[in-house]
Amino acid sequence: MVKSIYLDYAASREPNPSSIHELGVAAKKKLEKTRGDVASVLNARPEEIIFTSGGTESNNLAIQGIVYTAGELGVKNFTSVPHIVTTNIEHPSVLETCRLLERRGLAEVSIVPVEENGIVDPKKIRKKIKKNTVLVSVMYTNNEIGTIQPIREIAKEIRHYKKTITYKLEPRTYPIFHTDAVQAVNYLDLNVEKLGVDLLSLSGSKIAGAGRVGVLYKKKSVPLQNIFGGGDQEQGLRPGTENLPAILKFSSALTETRKIKEKESKRLMKLRDYFLVKLEHSHILKNIGMLVNGDHENRLPNIVSITFPKIPSDLLVIELSAQGIMCSSKSACKSASGEGSYVIKALRPGVDPEIGALRFSLGGDTAKKDIDYTIRILSKILTKLKKWYT
Amino acid sequence: MVKSIYLDYAASREPNPSSIHELGVAAKKKLEKTRGDVASVLNARPEEIIFTSGGTESNNLAIQGIVYTAGELGVKNFTSVPHIVTTNIEHPSVLETCRLLERRGLAEVSIVPVEENGIVDPKKIRKKIKKNTVLVSVMYTNNEIGTIQPIREIAKEIRHYKKTITYKLEPRTYPIFHTDAVQAVNYLDLNVEKLGVDLLSLSGSKIAGAGRVGVLYKKKSVPLQNIFGGGDQEQGLRPGTENLPAILKFSSALTETRKIKEKESKRLMKLRDYFLVKLEHSHILKNIGMLVNGDHENRLPNIVSITFPKIPSDLLVIELSAQGIMCSSKSACKSASGEGSYVIKALRPGVDPEIGALRFSLGGDTAKKDIDYTIRILSKILTKLKKWYT
Repeated sequence: MVKSIYLDYAASREPNPSSIHELGVAAKKKLEKTRGDVASVLNARPEEIIFTSGGTESNNLAIQGIVYTAGELGVKNFTSVPHIVTTNIEHPSVLETCRLLERRGLAEVSIVPVEENGIVDPKKIRKKIKKNTVLVSVMYTNNEIGTIQPIREIAKEIRHYKKTITYKLEPRTYPIFHTDAVQAVNYLDLNVEKLGVDLLSLSGSKIAGAGRVGVLYKKKSVPLQNIFGGGDQEQGLRPGTENLPAILKFSSALTETRKIKEKESKRLMKLRDYFLVKLEHSHILKNIGMLVNGDHENRLPNIVSITFPKIPSDLLVIELSAQGIMCSSKSACKSASGEGSYVIKALRPGVDPEIGALRFSLGGDTAKKDIDYTIRILSKILTKLKKWYT
Repeated sequence: MVKSIYLDYAASREPNPSSIHELGVAAKKKLEKTRGDVASVLNARPEEIIFTSGGTESNNLAIQGIVYTAGELGVKNFTSVPHIVTTNIEHPSVLETCRLLERRGLAEVSIVPVEENGIVDPKKIRKKIKKNTVLVSVMYTNNEIGTIQPIREIAKEIRHYKKTITYKLEPRTYPIFHTDAVQAVNYLDLNVEKLGVDLLSLSGSKIAGAGRVGVLYKKKSVPLQNIFGGGDQEQGLRPGTENLPAILKFSSALTETRKIKEKESKRLMKLRDYFLVKLEHSHILKNIGMLVNGDHENRLPNIVSITFPKIPSDLLVIELSAQGIMCSSKSACKSASGEGSYVIKALRPGVDPEIGALRFSLGGDTAKKDIDYTIRILSKILTKLKKWYT
């Protein structure tokens, strides 16, 4: 065994997968093994996995990367700037990125409104696709209301569209299909071939025990440009030293959550339905009323979104928090803005945006007694507030 | 003590500083306290600290953020696209970002070559500044050769330039001055007022025990746009849930390394000089020769960069690694490219790029016996290779 002396502090305090010495090579091997593990969860190839800093970056890389490539290539048959089709309930890291590119004159964006049940009609997506459409971005599941979008059907519409277009010289690359699967990771099928997607975003922040790391799956044939300038890491698509410790944590946590996915889905679905039934039958609601947001069938097992039409949800979040129950009223990413949830607004145009919705999202540690306790406390709070708000 | 039930899994598995419930508020408080701690190290205000995913992102945010703002504002007196002045030995995350923006038609870039000693002449920077110059970006210390750039003097040149320009309506905002201080963090003064910089990048990856996190200091008056679209985190300049655990680690590690900075600098400087003197006096070098790269005075205490004019440095890195000594031949960020170091090329145009340089970077665990061992092994390797390469 040779003595090991580390004189590469300027590269990184931890072994850097890009260093060419022994420790660097060992780190690189670990990184590539892990890339393979993550790829196999998605039924993808290792070289189709790009590690990023999180879900927001993955979505940005997907959208900006496609727009820059198309814009720079001056892709044939483009009569104007690259065009994106998306929906009105995407995560802010998708919607705001589209708006950013539009404001900078780099893209044109069509936003398809979802139906009343929070699900988008694939035909309406198809209708918006035109000659300069380079990207369709539709989330797999919504983060506020938990609805599952018809990804396979949208993929089919895109494939059909591509067939209707005839090209003399090149195969039809665009539109590329991207899905934000951040909220789907614990419960749904992530087989990219079955889903029919070209790009798919994941984030460690929604997986128990995973490090803060993001993944962008990029189908090999998809042309993509980097957002960041810098080193050659991640095929140059994501410069910067890879966060190997977090990537290792992410990969084992991903494997773990996929292993228990069916069992956990069933368990949470039962809890979720129990929660809703109990609430719906509560006598407290007689003068208050309650709306359950999002489709009743196509939804995540762990998200319950409800609106009490007269009581502001922010107030309920604070009242519940004071009793030790942590839930939310909208995407935490948009909590600093004074406005209500744009997702609930899209579904319930009749409801005052300040009312919004209450989101309870369940997880690995959630037990029936927690639900019972939550219902008891919520009833108390509603009883207290009822006289002021009804 | 109230019971705590977490029903906000969809926001994040760990308390999310953007959640409005109690745990979110507590996380936010911790985040803001930490922001204040980091700010005080830089003699800055808390609101001038933006947390990012790393040094590469901090440099990108500084450069792209300035260019987007200027480009969008259509700043007065700009006759063409925004112009950047930088040097030819910046880190890839600066140089490649400038090139990226230039290739996309969003910026024009002037690259000032450093002198033979690896230090840039502030007058030469000044000469390149013109009406549409929005940004000057010069690294504090070079990552490959360890030279310290005259940041204060460059800041003075920029201030003088601003005074020569008269504006009818607005105070002169541009050029903004950015420095990449990633390699300076353990050893040099980081007082942004004394340095006279408007933007400064830091990275956790160069600090012992710090998490993978980056910081961009942004002077309050500096107009900057976000790269990523998304949530409102970090004043909207860096959307995405903050990596609180890593930020906390970063902050304590930063405080720790700043505390021992003088003592460690002296210790490493002694080791570094011992290393060089021993090498220079080694009889092995008689027929080989050795060049020490970078200025002998203005340099980091922990970086030794040497060139053996006839022996390829990549080969030496591999040979040393086989004997347990981890060092490098160039920036790990560019190790995937087959080319030699552009930094060494800039300093030593006469040396074959394949020869390059050997970088030994010392750190907290480096002791005199490690240096002795390294010299012994290096001598052995040079003796072996001498017959083939001289």
